[in-house]
Order: sequence, then structure tokens, then C-alpha cells
Amino acid sequence: MPNLPIVTRVRELQARADRERAAGRRIALVPTMGALHAGHLSLVAEARKHADSVWMSIFVNPTQFNDPKDFEGYPVDTARDLALAAEQGVDVVFCPTAEELYPEGAQTWVDVQGLTDCLCGASRPGHFRGVTTVVAKLLLAARPHVAVFGQKDFQQCAVIRRMVSDLGFGVEIVAAPTVREPDGLALSSRNVHLGPEARLQALSLVRALDAAEAAVARGETDRAGLLAKVRAEIDSAPLAALDYAELCDPDTLEPAPPQLAGASLLALAVEFSPDAPGRGGRVRLIDNRVLGPNPSAQ
Amino acid sequence: MPNLPIVTRVRELQARADRERAAGRRIALVPTMGALHAGHLSLVAEARKHADSVWMSIFVNPTQFNDPKDFEGYPVDTARDLALAAEQGVDVVFCPTAEELYPEGAQTWVDVQGLTDCLCGASRPGHFRGVTTVVAKLLLAARPHVAVFGQKDFQQCAVIRRMVSDLGFGVEIVAAPTVREPDGLALSSRNVHLGPEARLQALSLVRALDAAEAAVARGETDRAGLLAKVRAEIDSAPLAALDYAELCDPDTLEPAPPQLAGASLLALAVEFSPDAPGRGGRVRLIDNRVLGPNPSAQ
Repeated sequence: MPNLPIVTRVRELQARADRERAAGRRIALVPTMGALHAGHLSLVAEARKHADSVWMSIFVNPTQFNDPKDFEGYPVDTARDLALAAEQGVDVVFCPTAEELYPEGAQTWVDVQGLTDCLCGASRPGHFRGVTTVVAKLLLAARPHVAVFGQKDFQQCAVIRRMVSDLGFGVEIVAAPTVREPDGLALSSRNVHLGPEARLQALSLVRALDAAEAAVARGETDRAGLLAKVRAEIDSAPLAALDYAELCDPDTLEPAPPQLAGASLLALAVEFSPDAPGRGGRVRLIDNRVLGPNPSAQ
Repeated sequence: MPNLPIVTRVRELQARADRERAAGRRIALVPTMGALHAGHLSLVAEARKHADSVWMSIFVNPTQFNDPKDFEGYPVDTARDLALAAEQGVDVVFCPTAEELYPEGAQTWVDVQGLTDCLCGASRPGHFRGVTTVVAKLLLAARPHVAVFGQKDFQQCAVIRRMVSDLGFGVEIVAAPTVREPDGLALSSRNVHLGPEARLQALSLVRALDAAEAAVARGETDRAGLLAKVRAEIDSAPLAALDYAELCDPDTLEPAPPQLAGASLLALAVEFSPDAPGRGGRVRLIDNRVLGPNPSAQ
């Protein structure tokens, strides 16, 4: 493994950040929960475009798991992660302990209202409060110029952008496109928990996005009709249970009007049962696509 | 007036902070809501001990006023404030607009739980959420090494310390002793709203603190007995209405045990009626003292 500095203390990372900034070097942070896959590595490549020094944090943040079983089962392979980060040319890895980021008696939360009420925020109470709190801590620790997140977590990107703007972090938030398996499944650290049959049925998410996109391309604008197509695709997968499928404004995340006008975010979350009873727990997958007029062309 | 740079934009202040930090200069921030008095100026003098460059923010933060009338009536005299800041040797003044610190659609809050449930937190719902949110924004804007607050707002100091430690701001929080009028009244920007009679009766706060301190010095440890003495002093002032008087742990702000053991914070808040009906609104004053063994000697 190349010589990859591993920092575990906030103070040490801040001192490094001060030195880099004083030398006029730009820092990009890629926050991760480890279990790195090609999606994370694409974030590192994106970060490299924006900075002289690319830092990755690896921290499985307990406060963003609304389900303790999900937290306990979250895949951890730190040695492999560090090797991948080094190969990818990451300059510094920040691996704090939970005690380092949540000091004894910690009772401070960063909370974004409004944007967090819907979609994953409605399904996972407290999830985004955990995300914004830990991202605030990571940004304060790394003092980056840029932070890069994956667009698969579309709502997370929107919430973090809002937090960074509202509090004035002075950090640019870059959202990088979702990386997919050859068959279309969005990469996720949770995919490893899918049994072979659930893995096949997980393609229902991308089929649902494709069906809605094709309908919009044919001129369909009826929100209910589009969502019915999405539900039909998910319902066709016996192991799948739809958590939510929504069409919303890509900026405010407010529900799209009954007749779509302009670009709309189609976001969905689906829970997959184990292939057979007793073969692991349920696996929750999310995916999304912006439908309709290209937002950048508006 | 000496040449005092006045910064109104967060981005500009951050760029200045980066330059100062890159040059190895230490920044101390003194956050104020203007209406400067000798208490604020003592914070500037304290800040000077800790830094090469002393920055003052002047911003009447709307989100920390639970009572809109209190916000509207808060004294504002920016020209006088700037002259005082310049005389005192402040190096930069940050005077943002409300729109600058709360961009359109802002919906992010920084919230410290626990410590904010009691004392002023109980009397003024939402007050500390406004304080911690704006202080987080000010610290992100000024990127200081040190920030100086007045110990008159004891709970505020405790809450901000907790926030800064929990989120890892990497900023040292210094609490400076309360500055008083010759007769003992703690300086407050709100004192100007007291009529002549209420001004006299406002001394009941310091008499209450003195009475409790004298009782502790005589060996009294009974919490209820001490608080009764405090209440008696406030009750002796006809224009005064006690909001709260509490004895608590100076670190956790939890109620002190029935028999005091170790240092205890005596904190009180009192509302004064106008001298005569129709002569202005009610004025809320706070004061506090740590009683018992010197905490630093424990």
C-alpha cells in the first residue's frame, strides 16, 4: 500500500487543513461510510478535478441509522477500504472513532427542516438529522474547499447543500453521477446483503425508472399515471416491498403538480426480503432519476 | 474615527480569515448585538490577550428573540457602536444583514439539547436555538481561534461551549467576568429601558446574589432556604417579578442537590414593570454568581 496518512483525531486533521490552506492548496473531502465500491472511487476522481489534495473520511455514523440492526449489519472492511483509497490516490484518510466525533455528553444536533420531511426523511425518522450533524462535524474537521457526494442519495445532496448554504460553511458541494452495475443496479454498500434472487429482482428499481422515463419521453405528464407504472414494476418483484415512489421538485423536494411541468425528480425506495426465511435481513435500496426537460437546459 | 474595516458579507470575512490564518495570525471574535457598553469593551480587552487580530460582530439576531416586542425594542445605535469599537482598537467589524446570515429559504438550525431545557431556556422557548444557530454562522464566517462571551450570560456560555466541543469547531471559548455599574447592577443593553424607579429596584438582583453568598459563607447549604432568601429580596421590589431563581451545577446546569455540595451556580431572571403604566414595556434582567467552594480550587 502506498504511504497513505491515516488521521484519527479532529485536531490533527484541522491542523493539516490549516497548513494546506495556508500553502494555498485546495482540499476536497469525500465523506464515506467505508465499504468502498466503484461509486465511491468515482467520487474521488471527481474530487481530484476540484482540488490539490483529496481527503476521504471513513466513518460509519451511528446517528444516521434509524434501525439499530441496519447499523450493526453495515459492512465494514477497513483494510480493504484503505488499500482502495491508496490505489485511487487519496491523499489523507480520516478514520475517527465514534467517541472522537461524538464526545462524551454530546447533545448538539444540526437539523435541516422542510427538505427532510419527505422521501427518506419520512421513512427514516432522525436519519437526516444524523447525516447533517455528522457532515457538519466532518466539514469542520477537514475544512475543505469542496465536498463530493453521490447523486444516488439525491435528497442527502439537497439537504447538505441547504445546510452548507444556510450556515455559511463556505464549502462547494459537488454531486457526482450514480455509478451502476453493468445491468443497471445502482452501486450501494448494501447490495452485498442481497441474496441471488433478490439481486435479480433489485433490477425492478431501474426498470421502474426506465418505464417512467420512457412514458415521459412519449409525452405522459400525469403524475399518478407515472407513479402507477413505477409501482407496477416494483410489484412485479415478489421479494420487493415499495417504501415510497414520489415525483417532486428537484430543488425543494415538494410534490410535483398532478400534471408535471418542468423537470421532476422520481425517487424511490424499496425493501427486499431475504431469498428464503432466515437468510439475512431485509435490504433497503434507493434510486432516483430526474425526468423531463434537462434542468441545465432550462 | 480610526480606519476600521466594516465587513458585511460572509464570503469577504472568510477570505480575510483565511489570509490572517495563512499569515499565522490569531483571530479572536467578540460576538455582540451592538448597543455596546463597558461590558462589551471588556470582552474586546480580553480578546486582545488571546489574539493578534480582534474582530467584533454586531448583529441583532432575530431568531433568538422569543418575544417580537423585545426584538423591535432592542436598542440600536450603529454609529456609536462603530466609534466605540474603533476607539477600543477592534481590527474588523462584521455587520451582516439578516438576509446575509439567514439566506432566503434558510431552514437549518443548530440545537443543543439538555443544557437548554432549564433557566432561560425554559422561560424563552427557542431562544438558545437562535443563539447556537447564529453563533455557529458567526464562527463559520470569522473562523476565529478564540471567541469571547460575557459570563453574565452564564447559560449561554455553557451552551456555546457544548456546541463548539460537540461539533468540533476548534475554537476556544473564553468567558469574561460580568462588568457592573458602581452600585452593582450588571451591565446590559436592556438597562436603558429601565425607568428611574425600576433602575433602583433592579439592585434587588445583586442584593439577592449577595444575600445568598453571605448565607453560604455562614455555612448554609440548604438549597430551599437559600432560594427563599433570594426570592425575599426580589419580592421586596414592587416592580419586580421573579422569572426564575435556581441553584444548579455550573457545568451541567442540572439542579443542585437539596443540600449543596461543591460550587453551585445561582442564576436568576427578573422582569421589571414600567415605573408607571404606559411608560415603556417590561424589562427582563438576568444575573448569576457561582457560590460555594471556588471551582478552580477544587
